[in-house]
Amino acid sequence: MPALVQRMSRLMLKTLRDAPADAETISHNLLVRAGYVRRTAAGVWSWLPLGRRVLENVTRVVREEMDAIGAQEVLLPALLPKEPYEATGRWDDYGDQLFRLTDRKGAEFLLGPTHEEIFTLLVRDQCSSYKDLPVILYQIQTKYRDEARPRSGILRGREFLMKDSYSFDLTDEGLAASYDLHRAAYLRIFERLGMDFRVVSAISGAMGGSASEEFLAPAAAGEDTFAQCAACGWAANTEAVTTTVPPVDPDTVAAIPAIEELDTPDTPTIETLAEHLGVPASATLKNLLITVDGEITAVGVPGDREVDLGKLTEHLAPARVELVTAEDFADHPELVRGYVGPQGMAGKSFRYLADPRVASGTSWITGANKEGVHARNVVCGRDFTVDRYLDVVVVRTGDPCPRCGGELTLDRAIEIGHIFQLGRKYADALKLDVLGPDGKPARVTMGSYGIGVSRAVAALAEQTADEQGLCWPREIAPADVHVVAAGKALQTELALELADRLGAAGVRVLVDDRAGVSPGVKFTDAELIGVPTILVVGRGAAEGRVEVKDRRTGERAEHPVEEALSLLVAAVHGGDANDTDA
Amino acid sequence: MPALVQRMSRLMLKTLRDAPADAETISHNLLVRAGYVRRTAAGVWSWLPLGRRVLENVTRVVREEMDAIGAQEVLLPALLPKEPYEATGRWDDYGDQLFRLTDRKGAEFLLGPTHEEIFTLLVRDQCSSYKDLPVILYQIQTKYRDEARPRSGILRGREFLMKDSYSFDLTDEGLAASYDLHRAAYLRIFERLGMDFRVVSAISGAMGGSASEEFLAPAAAGEDTFAQCAACGWAANTEAVTTTVPPVDPDTVAAIPAIEELDTPDTPTIETLAEHLGVPASATLKNLLITVDGEITAVGVPGDREVDLGKLTEHLAPARVELVTAEDFADHPELVRGYVGPQGMAGKSFRYLADPRVASGTSWITGANKEGVHARNVVCGRDFTVDRYLDVVVVRTGDPCPRCGGELTLDRAIEIGHIFQLGRKYADALKLDVLGPDGKPARVTMGSYGIGVSRAVAALAEQTADEQGLCWPREIAPADVHVVAAGKALQTELALELADRLGAAGVRVLVDDRAGVSPGVKFTDAELIGVPTILVVGRGAAEGRVEVKDRRTGERAEHPVEEALSLLVAAVHGGDANDTDA
Repeated sequence: MPALVQRMSRLMLKTLRDAPADAETISHNLLVRAGYVRRTAAGVWSWLPLGRRVLENVTRVVREEMDAIGAQEVLLPALLPKEPYEATGRWDDYGDQLFRLTDRKGAEFLLGPTHEEIFTLLVRDQCSSYKDLPVILYQIQTKYRDEARPRSGILRGREFLMKDSYSFDLTDEGLAASYDLHRAAYLRIFERLGMDFRVVSAISGAMGGSASEEFLAPAAAGEDTFAQCAACGWAANTEAVTTTVPPVDPDTVAAIPAIEELDTPDTPTIETLAEHLGVPASATLKNLLITVDGEITAVGVPGDREVDLGKLTEHLAPARVELVTAEDFADHPELVRGYVGPQGMAGKSFRYLADPRVASGTSWITGANKEGVHARNVVCGRDFTVDRYLDVVVVRTGDPCPRCGGELTLDRAIEIGHIFQLGRKYADALKLDVLGPDGKPARVTMGSYGIGVSRAVAALAEQTADEQGLCWPREIAPADVHVVAAGKALQTELALELADRLGAAGVRVLVDDRAGVSPGVKFTDAELIGVPTILVVGRGAAEGRVEVKDRRTGERAEHPVEEALSLLVAAVHGGDANDTDA
Repeated sequence: MPALVQRMSRLMLKTLRDAPADAETISHNLLVRAGYVRRTAAGVWSWLPLGRRVLENVTRVVREEMDAIGAQEVLLPALLPKEPYEATGRWDDYGDQLFRLTDRKGAEFLLGPTHEEIFTLLVRDQCSSYKDLPVILYQIQTKYRDEARPRSGILRGREFLMKDSYSFDLTDEGLAASYDLHRAAYLRIFERLGMDFRVVSAISGAMGGSASEEFLAPAAAGEDTFAQCAACGWAANTEAVTTTVPPVDPDTVAAIPAIEELDTPDTPTIETLAEHLGVPASATLKNLLITVDGEITAVGVPGDREVDLGKLTEHLAPARVELVTAEDFADHPELVRGYVGPQGMAGKSFRYLADPRVASGTSWITGANKEGVHARNVVCGRDFTVDRYLDVVVVRTGDPCPRCGGELTLDRAIEIGHIFQLGRKYADALKLDVLGPDGKPARVTMGSYGIGVSRAVAALAEQTADEQGLCWPREIAPADVHVVAAGKALQTELALELADRLGAAGVRVLVDDRAGVSPGVKFTDAELIGVPTILVVGRGAAEGRVEVKDRRTGERAEHPVEEALSLLVAAVHGGDANDTDA
């Protein structure tokens, strides 16, 4: 057992009054100021004694709940051979995100960003029969991603601690069951951690696969945006929001006049066009030109919407998506830059992809494929056809809920967990079969599940901090009680005695016994460090009275020493709101 | 708490009957065969469920003892910036051993082999006054070294788990105290682990510094050789063995005739020379030619001894040591290849370094600096002088003990720990000062201390395995009791019941409830896996009797169920020989 009582006089801790110059987020600011973490390089952090305790506490909760669903803990290396990642294509797909290196003999390696390939090979080696399945394996291990802009402290680092797990099943039903086990475990984990979180639908991105949900911790510092519907409770990563559009009444369509060309000189942008014509941007049709594996393609969206290039790329993966270049225009003189329209073009110069809002029967103002000319009354289905509909516009507050049609609101959040039904993508690439019940080889189906352990520490700091500093839920706090010796020798002596008695009762204690540090500084540090209960040994000590303060509420009350001790032991072992899942 | 009962029917485990083709050592063979580890790449290993438990148990022991000496646990990154390692010279000194990589922006990084630089910078940032010292920091963290020949399984990997700690003191006495704390903690750790080990003197090698001891686990698979003296108990790494030579009686020296040249055609080697003259090789003087920072230098040792180039390089560091080339001979025609002698040469063509056995007054047969000619009666001090004495010959069994003169014996061992008094080398390079008691900046003095955590698992496997398989000390075994259901439904049911009752009593259990696996295979697997106590639920189960077997001694006895349970709980919680330090 590590010692339960930590004296601050012997703790390497330097708190800072001022925020670090580069701190963009609450957690970055406070975790550095309170001496929990220290930057070693851009996106690469050291965990100092208090920080390591919090990290260890999160790790313990994650481990307990993973063990509880029968997952088996293993530990795989971070230094991984290139070949399996080449076999699945991820060696290239990861692009600059992957740290690559070469050993003394020229063999190529990577620092693992996730371990699907290696787990697949492990199970291929260890399991030969359907009787060996299902298997759930997990590890709590260091991951590497060469982020373009490492920032926000430990919220988005280049070296970070993750729990990653992988399920292996024979059937789709088995995979669904393994997925549900993880979902339930994740709910328990984040509840125990005291996290405010949402479970939202997600698309799976570069990972491939089908069913997928994200666990998001709402926070202003978050890099993810999620949409939720107040009316029906539906929530999703904005990348997973789909749009359904009511059909247009055929009579309305029939009444639309024929296409009319409009002289619109110097209106190559939607803004200039809408202003020139005195119409809202939403009445215009914007046509984004891209190449998909080198083929010219147009993407039509209402003029007031932005195309999300990331989403577009995801939808069209594994095809290579690029914006058109001046050379593409030179090769295709029929494409008039700034004045492109889909009418009369489909099947000729380009494929036409469109947002669902560009529905059959809708009428638009768009380019007339002539310099300085636009067209109005360009009707989808009459004047042009859409080859494929895709949800690629940036979602906005007020967009309709895909489930109930209510209005969506958008919020920032931190992705703290992600569960995927990968299916057979990796098993196919690496030929993972077991002998099936019928005696024939059967391909295994997989799930992959991650929790950002170090990121969870930052997310909790974001969600729980207040103006005074950090303010941890008890289960992951670096200590249960922060004893402050606020006075002279008498106070310090009593503080140390109380700390030892609490420690003997199984309470984790940080005791501020520093000599030559004023009570004011000690109080400020205690607020900054954020242990849930503060025990002040001050003026009342001479009469055997001490003050118990709740860090979160600020509530304080003086008690006789023995009563205070009983209260504190009960608060920790009897459990309080933060102690167990609600 | 992780579940204490692990059913083998749900454990990912595939034991192998045959040794892996590349297994050179007992631990490599057995840890792979028993399903503890699996090779992911050369020198890069995955820890499977049973292996991870053992690794975790070693980690726990190390952590408890480090906490007990007041060391503070932190966690530093493995991905480290180049600059601090450039400042200390280790970026270059490590040569090919260092994994180097470049991020997307071209910044250079390394994968940390040890963390002296980063801890020095951390303390420079966190501690400003002598009042903040002493500080001992430690981490249990993954290290990287690009070994030239990764082999022996986890005994010498390229990614491995280490406990490294660093002490920071103001004074040499403080450093000595921090060193002693570590020495005592290491003794407790290795005793608790059940390791057979020796503490031996060591030179500090590339780490720099003064006092240094190694903790060695004697094992045939070890890559280190250590010398010990049966007479006085002195022991040291062979690199640290020094030679003292009794002075030669001046009368004897005076009686030696003058140099005499001998016609010795075709005798460019010691063997051909000794045979030609009919003298023992030890009567000849071998002169190894090297360059030290480009300067020709000769190293004289008795003809029957080998020069340890590693030791030589250490002694002359940081100078660059290379063997002479054909071009060097071409540039120095006075050097006659195969016939070099030190007489008449010192101060002219080369500096002369020598083994202490080439003492003043000793007389040798050596080259005469003429093709095909040697000289006899070449006396040290009369005919040539030695610029510097160095202990650079390979130590042999029978060499004299430096302390008592007794005969040394040599044994193979695995280095499992190393403690160093680094002194101010890193503090100087990185300018680590604190404000001293006199108000002036004072340079800090450091120690560095390592335990190979993953290597300790292999060392324990090496030392404790027998012909049947692994045979763990209880403190680090993956379970306390291995329950074998050897029979039909009755036996399996009782086995699972006993496993649960043992688990409820705090005993860690592995229960072999696998269906369709014969008792013979289960017994073989139990011996291979090496849990210290085996509980067999076999034929006697119908009469409520089970067999308790000690894995190490093979002792077995049948007991009524209740008695067996009491025995096992007592063995685990009451403590047995393996349970605590002796």
